Amino acid sequence: MNIGFIGTGSMGKAIIPLLIKAGHHVSAWNRSREAMADLEGVRPLESPAAAFQEAVVISLLADDRAVREVLLSPQALGKADKRCIHIVMSTLSPLLMKALQTAHHDAGIALIAAPVFGVPAVAARGELNILAAGSQAAIATVQPIFDLLGKKTWFLGDQPDQACIAKIAGNMMITQAIQSLGEASVLAERYGLSPAVFIELMTQTLFASPSYQRYGQNIVAGTFEPGFKLSLGLKDINLAIDAARLKDLALPAADAVRSKMTAAVARGLGNKDWSVFATETVTRSDEQPFTATVMDV
Amino acid sequence: MNIGFIGTGSMGKAIIPLLIKAGHHVSAWNRSREAMADLEGVRPLESPAAAFQEAVVISLLADDRAVREVLLSPQALGKADKRCIHIVMSTLSPLLMKALQTAHHDAGIALIAAPVFGVPAVAARGELNILAAGSQAAIATVQPIFDLLGKKTWFLGDQPDQACIAKIAGNMMITQAIQSLGEASVLAERYGLSPAVFIELMTQTLFASPSYQRYGQNIVAGTFEPGFKLSLGLKDINLAIDAARLKDLALPAADAVRSKMTAAVARGLGNKDWSVFATETVTRSDEQPFTATVMDV
Amino acid sequence: MNIGFIGTGSMGKAIIPLLIKAGHHVSAWNRSREAMADLEGVRPLESPAAAFQEAVVISLLADDRAVREVLLSPQALGKADKRCIHIVMSTLSPLLMKALQTAHHDAGIALIAAPVFGVPAVAARGELNILAAGSQAAIATVQPIFDLLGKKTWFLGDQPDQACIAKIAGNMMITQAIQSLGEASVLAERYGLSPAVFIELMTQTLFASPSYQRYGQNIVAGTFEPGFKLSLGLKDINLAIDAARLKDLALPAADAVRSKMTAAVARGLGNKDWSVFATETVTRSDEQPFTATVMDV
Amino acid sequence: MNIGFIGTGSMGKAIIPLLIKAGHHVSAWNRSREAMADLEGVRPLESPAAAFQEAVVISLLADDRAVREVLLSPQALGKADKRCIHIVMSTLSPLLMKALQTAHHDAGIALIAAPVFGVPAVAARGELNILAAGSQAAIATVQPIFDLLGKKTWFLGDQPDQACIAKIAGNMMITQAIQSLGEASVLAERYGLSPAVFIELMTQTLFASPSYQRYGQNIVAGTFEPGFKLSLGLKDINLAIDAARLKDLALPAADAVRSKMTAAVARGLGNKDWSVFATETVTRSDEQPFTATVMDV
Repeated sequence: MNIGFIGTGSMGKAIIPLLIKAGHHVSAWNRSREAMADLEGVRPLESPAAAFQEAVVISLLADDRAVREVLLSPQALGKADKRCIHIVMSTLSPLLMKALQTAHHDAGIALIAAPVFGVPAVAARGELNILAAGSQAAIATVQPIFDLLGKKTWFLGDQPDQACIAKIAGNMMITQAIQSLGEASVLAERYGLSPAVFIELMTQTLFASPSYQRYGQNIVAGTFEPGFKLSLGLKDINLAIDAARLKDLALPAADAVRSKMTAAVARGLGNKDWSVFATETVTRSDEQPFTATVMDV
Repeated sequence: MNIGFIGTGSMGKAIIPLLIKAGHHVSAWNRSREAMADLEGVRPLESPAAAFQEAVVISLLADDRAVREVLLSPQALGKADKRCIHIVMSTLSPLLMKALQTAHHDAGIALIAAPVFGVPAVAARGELNILAAGSQAAIATVQPIFDLLGKKTWFLGDQPDQACIAKIAGNMMITQAIQSLGEASVLAERYGLSPAVFIELMTQTLFASPSYQRYGQNIVAGTFEPGFKLSLGLKDINLAIDAARLKDLALPAADAVRSKMTAAVARGLGNKDWSVFATETVTRSDEQPFTATVMDV
Repeated sequence: MNIGFIGTGSMGKAIIPLLIKAGHHVSAWNRSREAMADLEGVRPLESPAAAFQEAVVISLLADDRAVREVLLSPQALGKADKRCIHIVMSTLSPLLMKALQTAHHDAGIALIAAPVFGVPAVAARGELNILAAGSQAAIATVQPIFDLLGKKTWFLGDQPDQACIAKIAGNMMITQAIQSLGEASVLAERYGLSPAVFIELMTQTLFASPSYQRYGQNIVAGTFEPGFKLSLGLKDINLAIDAARLKDLALPAADAVRSKMTAAVARGLGNKDWSVFATETVTRSDEQPFTATVMDV
Repeated sequence: MNIGFIGTGSMGKAIIPLLIKAGHHVSAWNRSREAMADLEGVRPLESPAAAFQEAVVISLLADDRAVREVLLSPQALGKADKRCIHIVMSTLSPLLMKALQTAHHDAGIALIAAPVFGVPAVAARGELNILAAGSQAAIATVQPIFDLLGKKTWFLGDQPDQACIAKIAGNMMITQAIQSLGEASVLAERYGLSPAVFIELMTQTLFASPSYQRYGQNIVAGTFEPGFKLSLGLKDINLAIDAARLKDLALPAADAVRSKMTAAVARGLGNKDWSVFATETVTRSDEQPFTATVMDV
């Protein structure tokens, strides 16, 4: 199949070799031409619009802003081949996805939202979880591509923004798990318990899941790089809170987490792994508690 | 071994048959005598003090208050056999555990804190996770008992309150996971995603752990009984926040959760499974959002 | 002076008679022509652009969205008289005010931000507090107009968005005061204290200020109309939280308030006075507290 | 009248001279005898019990713990003169006040709760606001004493704990006002507005009340001593949250404030004026915002 790629960042670079190895013909556009230099077997494109002459477009742009600039301009979709299917793998706001849906409808081409769970290393092994939403017929057409990239495709609905909200809500849940690990391990530590022992206990029993184990290890080791950047994580929880706002929905635990993440970014930690915000706890200089008021009752 | 039981509630009733089957001699005291009627092969005791004449005492009283009334009175421990080892399996505050430690030191007997992860049904299968803290020698002595009851004993330190804080922090993490599941699934639902599909996605991928799966199922099914009572869960998160307060430690996400749990108890849901508080979300009567202000920017 | 008015809502209608009475010549444009029917002595304009032929423009549009649609179009400012001074009295985001500043700079006309503290009734008496920011020379020119409308003009800086942030932060403080009144009066009531007595105590002593007195009275009386709409108040606290976000600043108390306001809007209270959200408290049906755990310690 | 004083701290020392000047006979007990050395015209007492032989006892002990130790022992009230009226001016938990009420009922003497609004300097001028609750007859008897100490006595109910809750709720409101001033002034500052100008604006208009003006000045000046200690303020907000907990009442804004106060105490600021916690804001080292995501929508 002829596949046009838009945005060849770290995730794109993990995916493209899988496509080529499977015999697909890959062409690509990236804002910075240099970032494409080390991509073997890929035909460079002059513009995003050129990608939409292929059978399938996979876009992996950074965020809402990049998508608006690159894909929502009249030039990008205006001359698209009507048979083209566009797979958007970025984490975008539902609101922007609705705007994309309108633009694709106007251009007469199919739009699939397909954000993923999994870091580039997981992508390179073809073991992503793919969160797909959009026309079922279009998804069926590109399912062979999804099968190359992921171990499972989750069909979430026929509206593309349904995949956006699932991805955003999932990322929100990760930040809440990080916050929970942070609060609990500091509490345990204050009572003389080893954080390593405590985290092992929790992540081998009640919370024996990939996310808890991964971020728990970061917290115990105190190492927060490389990984998913805190500044990007903050962007995503803001997407969740904004999406909730549009539905008159309050998310108080997300607010508490956002507050901590914001403070951590403000302290200059935005480029570290997002689990770093869990460590934002003050250690008393002296050891005399001022305020043991719970004993007063 | 001769084992004296204090408090034969649902957890006690799950455990005692395992002990008897393994050949231990079990005697027991319970505040309400009737609650012991259906316990076969157990010798009733006249007082808590009588239990402390046995080689091992296992106490499973409801909460701090019950422990203070039953075990911290001068009569309870005053005439204890010095060779007795007391295993406290209740979820207690670290502060009360410290007071128990002093009382046991004064009485000259060994104290082990051993709260557990696992409901009575898990206990009945001998598959608990046992969180043990106290004298290592004493724990070694009763390890055969722990092996009957649990699939694993986690040694958390030589201070009994270290097991309390691990148990409390673990319960706090469960409530935070419930809150997270609640916020995320409602958000997904507001965008037309099926909560069942969303919860399945999350609990099969990022959060494939027992606690998320169990409470996720409750939320999807909308059934919240029987299980662990919300009113008891609120008691436990208050223990966590109180324990943090004594160490000048703020737990903002726990505060947010406590707030929701308190409101749910106030609405009369205290006897339902604690995951019920995740559902405390308002549905708009009309469908016109008042406040789509995020689009203004 | 010739004054062109853009947006003749309730605040505009309170102000215009003061201007006319002082001898100014007032023309006006409003999206809905009918809303201008009862304005005496005002010359109707065909377009917003027409207003910018006058010496002074006062715009009082509802929100960011309206301003973007009406004022940020190329037509609106493109043919403005270079001597024109534009006074923006709406509560807008700092971000939009920056965009307006650029547009006015490009059009070569002066921009003053001048949101106010005070409801229409206060405006009609000429007793507003006017929060002015922008070119000092321009403000000096229109000072006679401000003197008609307000009892005091506060000069906040030479950047128009400085007035926006002061207004938004002020509204945020009002919502926080309402929340505080609500939490404290419900707490007092739960202990048998009359909310009326409690609110009188507080608003005659520590909090003897207009805002506390006004909203305290609403809470005591349980009457929440007419006033400033909750849905508009929620819009403003979202402006504050968004403005903070752009500066990596966390506002946890504002988050808590926003959460309550959002829930109240979701319950259908968006058209009531914004102090209504303080009443969102659940009354227990039965009187047995489930969870008096504070006594356990 | 013969007045026995229990607890001669800074507030006691401000009050006693007023009583003596008015012709009352004052005797006093204090835990530390030295602290009474500079009290002129006061007869020292050997024990708290001795005070209860006087017509009126005024107690001003530090907190719940001190009251329990000094007044709830059998010796303190056991031999009290039945005609004695006890005025408790401390800020105590409603729960402890209920226990005091029982003890006074058993001892057959009258109990009045009378915490105050006002620092020692205000007390020394006889300008306190006195929050009185208890038997109306008893209050009428001691009203001449209240008239010496305060500019107004507020009768809050016939149950002494009603005065406790009013005082606690009032202190909670002060901390919420401080938090509000802090969040708003930092937000204003981030947009280039002078905090001094902003605070003056707010405390001369919407929030022209003593508490806002006092704490606003502290924040602007950055000076936080001497005043009411943060560690004591944290104790009081914990009293409020505990009191709410006993009634299944959630106070989310109080939680947010408590979290900030706890963190400030943990950073070693417990001895400064409680308004110091409002300043707990991080300044970015670099000026490039990581996360201007609000613009993405």
